Amino acid sequence: MKFSWKQGTGLSENQLLPAKKKLEGYRKRLEQIAEHTDYAQPESSIQLSFDRTLQVAVETEVLHAHPKTVQDVVLIGIGGSSLGTSAVYDALSPTRALKRLHVLDTLSPINLRTVADRLRAHKSERAYTVCVVSKSGGTTETIANAMTLEVEIKKQHPKCLDRFVVITDEGSALWNRARERNMRVLAVPAMVGGRFSVMSAVGLFPLALLGVDIRQLLSGARKAVRDNTQNSAQNSARASAAIVHHQWKHGRAIHDTFVFNPELESLGKWVRQLTAESLGKRENLSGKEVRVGITPTVSVGSSDLHSMAQLSIGGPADKFTTFVHSAWAQDARVPQRSTFDRLVADAQAQSYNGIMSAIRKGTHAAYRSAGHPYVEVELEGLSEKELGAYMQFRMIETMYLAQLMRVNAFDQPAVEAYKSVTRRLLKRAKK
Amino acid sequence: MKFSWKQGTGLSENQLLPAKKKLEGYRKRLEQIAEHTDYAQPESSIQLSFDRTLQVAVETEVLHAHPKTVQDVVLIGIGGSSLGTSAVYDALSPTRALKRLHVLDTLSPINLRTVADRLRAHKSERAYTVCVVSKSGGTTETIANAMTLEVEIKKQHPKCLDRFVVITDEGSALWNRARERNMRVLAVPAMVGGRFSVMSAVGLFPLALLGVDIRQLLSGARKAVRDNTQNSAQNSARASAAIVHHQWKHGRAIHDTFVFNPELESLGKWVRQLTAESLGKRENLSGKEVRVGITPTVSVGSSDLHSMAQLSIGGPADKFTTFVHSAWAQDARVPQRSTFDRLVADAQAQSYNGIMSAIRKGTHAAYRSAGHPYVEVELEGLSEKELGAYMQFRMIETMYLAQLMRVNAFDQPAVEAYKSVTRRLLKRAKK
Repeated sequence: MKFSWKQGTGLSENQLLPAKKKLEGYRKRLEQIAEHTDYAQPESSIQLSFDRTLQVAVETEVLHAHPKTVQDVVLIGIGGSSLGTSAVYDALSPTRALKRLHVLDTLSPINLRTVADRLRAHKSERAYTVCVVSKSGGTTETIANAMTLEVEIKKQHPKCLDRFVVITDEGSALWNRARERNMRVLAVPAMVGGRFSVMSAVGLFPLALLGVDIRQLLSGARKAVRDNTQNSAQNSARASAAIVHHQWKHGRAIHDTFVFNPELESLGKWVRQLTAESLGKRENLSGKEVRVGITPTVSVGSSDLHSMAQLSIGGPADKFTTFVHSAWAQDARVPQRSTFDRLVADAQAQSYNGIMSAIRKGTHAAYRSAGHPYVEVELEGLSEKELGAYMQFRMIETMYLAQLMRVNAFDQPAVEAYKSVTRRLLKRAKK
Repeated sequence: MKFSWKQGTGLSENQLLPAKKKLEGYRKRLEQIAEHTDYAQPESSIQLSFDRTLQVAVETEVLHAHPKTVQDVVLIGIGGSSLGTSAVYDALSPTRALKRLHVLDTLSPINLRTVADRLRAHKSERAYTVCVVSKSGGTTETIANAMTLEVEIKKQHPKCLDRFVVITDEGSALWNRARERNMRVLAVPAMVGGRFSVMSAVGLFPLALLGVDIRQLLSGARKAVRDNTQNSAQNSARASAAIVHHQWKHGRAIHDTFVFNPELESLGKWVRQLTAESLGKRENLSGKEVRVGITPTVSVGSSDLHSMAQLSIGGPADKFTTFVHSAWAQDARVPQRSTFDRLVADAQAQSYNGIMSAIRKGTHAAYRSAGHPYVEVELEGLSEKELGAYMQFRMIETMYLAQLMRVNAFDQPAVEAYKSVTRRLLKRAKK
């Protein structure tokens, strides 16, 4: 993973020094936390990729799930329980022979029926695995979907519960229930929040079962933890946090993740959830009402290029952009001759990577001359290792950024607001 | 389509009066424009749904494409040339027996190969149609994809060009080329911009060929034109524009389209492109540099609910939300008994529509008590008629909003900025 910021921001090393200095204590803390696997701190998600016990537990569970017969993996989970898995899967699946992933991440009778039909069509329940992922164990949509799916497929497959794997906090009501019924369970460490949990069983189990090389994913994540907790030039998470914070202080409170590979759109959505929920806070660390936050957006190049270029370049100076791209390993080439040649003469005989690179550079130049700042992330291939490194980089960047903004990256107090009304309405509807 | 705004904004009819007054002249103009099909004004997209000649031309072309043998429709087009078709298709396809749509809306060797493989696998070229959509006729990505796809499938299907239909401005280089080669062509009226073109051949031809009832789509659009150009209580586009403008003036420059049906995500993306490109402008109507714009975001309930609720309720007061939902015609019900019952006791035996409604109402209540304003759009079913009405409503709302913001809704001057650099780079790479 290559992180470049100088050309796009016009900032110098010196301008990042005050933020670096402010973050030095916290960086040291992260460096220390990374040395353990005790999951005793809110930042303990950075320990996950070093946890060999976890890796073995996941791999054992995958073997138990009979990966050779599994064709479909259903993931029932919402937000942090599913976005990380989707991000990695969607980035890799177009070029890999992975098993099929179905995500039930909201209530949708249509999606539920499609998945139930597909599972019922299998002769044996060994053709699928259903992962029920809920950190708290009590997420309404997740449990409702698990209940409905179980009953829908039980008629055909009386033993379908053997194909359910539950991933939740140890000791949650869901955990206890699953144990009572002899279901397979995997724990999420209590201190690891949903949006930081992709390197725990939450992401690792479904991904490994689907055929993703989780050892490579973890290896990329480990390298990113080392790089981004050190006091060195490799610490791009700290640099990025300093830059985003600088831009935010200067009125750029919208952060666009502009991916130039369509298969990375889900990765952008994972980033969106991570940063929206971690940084949007009413109170700061001292308990003072501050109402701060950064609004994350996701754009896909070049599909969204006209509208985002028009808005970013023409519109108000309220945005900051992180461009993310990777060259395609299997490139294509525009032919020299075709019915449509000469309509865009410059594209004839050029490679797709080459044209895309010209489009990206054209975009960067236009952003620069409009004074619209950006940084660039280049993934050296769409591989497990690079994705692991990028995701870990983003999680640590978010922690640094929360420190600079002086908010708690790990709580989500406002979520309770809508949940309590929903519960009351559901209770009333039952009567 | 039902539009509600009083509860969520706390505004009164009286507070909208000044904006209504300001818009009265423009409203009258729209009302007059809607009576013709001369396509002589920038607003002429509102004439499309009344244009019987257009409808006949599209239906004739669909018949010529042998819809009975077509299984796959490939749409090569970017931004306004593809987003509208995707929006309608994605909303309807989960519950309909439509043909399969493949969209090539950016450069992606992976997607291109997948589509080429699929077309080549057919015994006859009559099994597919390829729509090449480019208003200007010179969009680099679109022409490059058309060139590559043609050459890729020509080896198997020498007559594949007969299966290409070109949709572009009459007289563009692409138009002339297609005519020279005896390809089928459909025109987009010159004054109808890409992002306002879904009710032209751009959206109608691929949708009709896929099996969408375009007469119903147009009927919904016609009703929306009538309602939203009148001076009456049915004019919800004017009300919505007045409200969004009011919020924007009060610092809420981010407009979230929060859909509560996952199948409406593409519709949200269509709205995003429409408003980003129409309203993000450097200069106002008098040529004065103003740099205004509204940043559109798309959220999907309940997948994005935790992160968006946390950011909207906890974070800065810079957002305004339009909730969009429809009840599902084919509902599902959570069973009374299951292994997972009692974990969320209130969901037992409830319908999916019922739970989703409680979640929506819970969200609304939380937004209200946090002082976060919103409006609601209820679609009475996921049907062609409702989608046509909603899209037409949004296009007219955007025109009103541009008037209130005093910008030109129909140009995109900043897009040229990146295009010229890209062209230079491509030229250099050729040498």
